[in-house]
Amino acid sequence: MKKFEAHVNVMPLKALLDPQGKAVMHGLHNLQFKNVQNVRIGKHIYIELEAKSKKEAQEQVEAMCKKMLINPVVEYFEFEVNEI
Amino acid sequence: MKKFEAHVNVMPLKALLDPQGKAVMHGLHNLQFKNVQNVRIGKHIYIELEAKSKKEAQEQVEAMCKKMLINPVVEYFEFEVNEI
Repeated sequence: MKKFEAHVNVMPLKALLDPQGKAVMHGLHNLQFKNVQNVRIGKHIYIELEAKSKKEAQEQVEAMCKKMLINPVVEYFEFEVNEI
Repeated sequence: MKKFEAHVNVMPLKALLDPQGKAVMHGLHNLQFKNVQNVRIGKHIYIELEAKSKKEAQEQVEAMCKKMLINPVVEYFEFEVNEI
């Protein structure tokens, strides 16, 4: 078995408002970062796992996202898997 | 002014326990993903901003992180800036 690391980003769907992102954007404007035009905030999930191949690891991570890590009604995900 | 996007990951310091990550790891084990060895959960922040150059954009994002986005007692950050 080889060891892999996955970096998963879980973000609010682009069609939805992101109140946390909006709040942070206003906070940054108040700190004089007037050049900020948009902020969106999601989760970053780092997973270490064992698998036989990179392909198997990718399939496993995708299954984890769909079964548990994301809520497809309000979020989407993207990920990257590397051998370590 | 050019337009840039920054992807910032804010993660719990490696020396600290990450109770949310541990809870998700146990959840994944219960879903039969026994091959998962470690999970850590942080934030992913996407920022769109205007700046004169990539270097200026990077300096701005670093300043935003230090002034507002992260708590250095319990978190560290890494980011990437690209022109869009």
